[in-house]
Amino acid sequence: MPGPLEGVRVLDLTRVLAGPFCTMMMADLGAEVVKVEVPGTGDDSRGFGPFKDGKSLYYITINRGKKSVALDLKKEEGRALLLKLARKSDILVENFRPGTMEKLGLGWDVLKKENPRLIYAAVSGFGHSGPDSRKPAYDILVQARGGMMSITGWPSSPPTRVGMSTGDITAALFGASGILAALYEREKTGTGQKVDVAMLDCQLAILENALVRYQVEGKAPAPLGTRHPTITPFQAFRASDAWFVVAVGNDSLWKTFCDALDRPDLLADPRFATNGDRTKNIADLSPELERVFARRKAAEWIALLEGAGVPSAPVNSVDKVMQDPQLLARNMLVTVEDRDVGTVTIPGNPIKMERLPESGSRPPAPDIGQDTVEVLEGVLGLGAAEIEALKAAGALG
Amino acid sequence: MPGPLEGVRVLDLTRVLAGPFCTMMMADLGAEVVKVEVPGTGDDSRGFGPFKDGKSLYYITINRGKKSVALDLKKEEGRALLLKLARKSDILVENFRPGTMEKLGLGWDVLKKENPRLIYAAVSGFGHSGPDSRKPAYDILVQARGGMMSITGWPSSPPTRVGMSTGDITAALFGASGILAALYEREKTGTGQKVDVAMLDCQLAILENALVRYQVEGKAPAPLGTRHPTITPFQAFRASDAWFVVAVGNDSLWKTFCDALDRPDLLADPRFATNGDRTKNIADLSPELERVFARRKAAEWIALLEGAGVPSAPVNSVDKVMQDPQLLARNMLVTVEDRDVGTVTIPGNPIKMERLPESGSRPPAPDIGQDTVEVLEGVLGLGAAEIEALKAAGALG
Repeated sequence: MPGPLEGVRVLDLTRVLAGPFCTMMMADLGAEVVKVEVPGTGDDSRGFGPFKDGKSLYYITINRGKKSVALDLKKEEGRALLLKLARKSDILVENFRPGTMEKLGLGWDVLKKENPRLIYAAVSGFGHSGPDSRKPAYDILVQARGGMMSITGWPSSPPTRVGMSTGDITAALFGASGILAALYEREKTGTGQKVDVAMLDCQLAILENALVRYQVEGKAPAPLGTRHPTITPFQAFRASDAWFVVAVGNDSLWKTFCDALDRPDLLADPRFATNGDRTKNIADLSPELERVFARRKAAEWIALLEGAGVPSAPVNSVDKVMQDPQLLARNMLVTVEDRDVGTVTIPGNPIKMERLPESGSRPPAPDIGQDTVEVLEGVLGLGAAEIEALKAAGALG
Repeated sequence: MPGPLEGVRVLDLTRVLAGPFCTMMMADLGAEVVKVEVPGTGDDSRGFGPFKDGKSLYYITINRGKKSVALDLKKEEGRALLLKLARKSDILVENFRPGTMEKLGLGWDVLKKENPRLIYAAVSGFGHSGPDSRKPAYDILVQARGGMMSITGWPSSPPTRVGMSTGDITAALFGASGILAALYEREKTGTGQKVDVAMLDCQLAILENALVRYQVEGKAPAPLGTRHPTITPFQAFRASDAWFVVAVGNDSLWKTFCDALDRPDLLADPRFATNGDRTKNIADLSPELERVFARRKAAEWIALLEGAGVPSAPVNSVDKVMQDPQLLARNMLVTVEDRDVGTVTIPGNPIKMERLPESGSRPPAPDIGQDTVEVLEGVLGLGAAEIEALKAAGALG
């Protein structure tokens, strides 16, 4: 596909989420992604809901635009084919539990002998080193262990999981950067290298200022609902019909805000004079504002505040997000045409580049093994007889 | 610095979080990052807490290992110097509100004439196109508008903000991939290009399966606390002393789990026979398990369950995260030695690469303009008299 990664081939051994999201980014940037799936059952996420007409829309979303080759890596012929494909690829990505590739005889030591230019990226729960390297991981485990759940939620609520799999997806994102940095470096050195990204490490990496807050305050940061730790008011409020957010970032905006609400009393109140005062006295301020905002609809408050220059936005549910004019204008809601389930709307690619063509649609996700013959013929140059023999040996799907 | 981006120069006009996190990743991968700051005040985030001895640890965390050049871009001499620096750079990153660079006379049309090999990356709230392009954005605005707050929290709680600035940091991560893809492509074409990443777009991109859930179920996904929508039990529980998570991913693990808890009655209970049954009857199952888990400490339950092969983990607060043996073994807690505040522990780089040296420390963040003279002399070849004249004109810090 046209794009910065045109001509780059990714051999994709990934399953479920962290790995497939990473290789989806490569496909969106123009790479040829050859997904290797278990014959018969394929990627586990083909069994994950939501389903339409028995087909997983979970799988469709993050595997759009990839090819599928069904290879049985438990068979010697399957492994031999994988090594041949590795010779013809630029990047190999896997998200098995550490040790699995070595058990299959496909560890980095083997792969780099086959193809010294190969970039080998492993995305795992805990990484390829350390005492817990080989433990199984799920998103919820790294969100819990990595601190994210302890700072998300409300002061009075239990620890709260981020509503999407930030453990997986953040690892996919850091993994993509590692792969692309290695690809650039290979242009200089001619040599590939191993990239090792752990979901747990990535959770720590995005804790932002939580580490230094702990070091200064001597106690672990706690969840704050929607509000900002040091700026007030900077949070969600409930209007008469829906929630919305307002961000009064400084004292000058506070004046604008009070003027817009026609509340000179709040502006004159010494408890709320500076941002520091407002943060200290938030227990007095919040109920005042809650009473005000309960009187009109969210859209009215947003129009009023935005009109006055105070940043404000709706708290959108997913149905509203899918109609957002800015996201539509940015081509962030794209369709795939699936031969079984028809048109499905999925998130577009948020990396907009001058020489990456935009389109309102993406090629669909593959059926298991739909590209096996094409890839074996086209990439490896196998003939019909060889392919038949491999099928007979049970190595292909 | 040694690493895949050794020899790459990033001209960094970013402030606060999304941009600086992106260029921090470049520095961590070995690039030379030359941060351009406003003389006198510098990056706004130098004024953000937490503070130690009056110095912002927020700034220190995400600007480690960068150089600082103080240039007044409101002065003609300052802008002229910036264009000269752009000629000597590979990448320019900015996160101003769209339109600002053009107003300064430093828009992409101007920059690409100065240096056709330059990669120009803009990270903004809503992107460089669309009806809301020029609106101000904060993390809370895109978390609200992009749907994240609507799926995070508890069924009974108000919408909940993710406890870190996922709006900013996700844009930094997608931005880094766009920049690195453009850098690789430039090796083929010899030409740079513009990369345009919006915080709002990125929020949509990480909503995972929420879009397809809405399309199948016809109603917008709601927050679920810590639990999984379709796997049970897969959530946090309160032990006698602390919260922990358990992930019973399939029916075979359910048997293991009941055996480990010595609860054959639960295993035999037809309400809980299959994962589908357990999910349907979670209102019956959860109180049973809550009673069980309240009896012993979290560490005991985790040891028991992990010993039996059931994935389990503590819900760590930030103090515990900083002592995690796996994160320590992975070199994810690194120090910077700041000349004013001493040793500060910050998150390490989660992208582990064969030819990227690991270290337990990172170079400190710069003082405002500490590298101005070195960069003007070393990169632009200016002499002492020219630098004095620029200082006299007020163009330097």
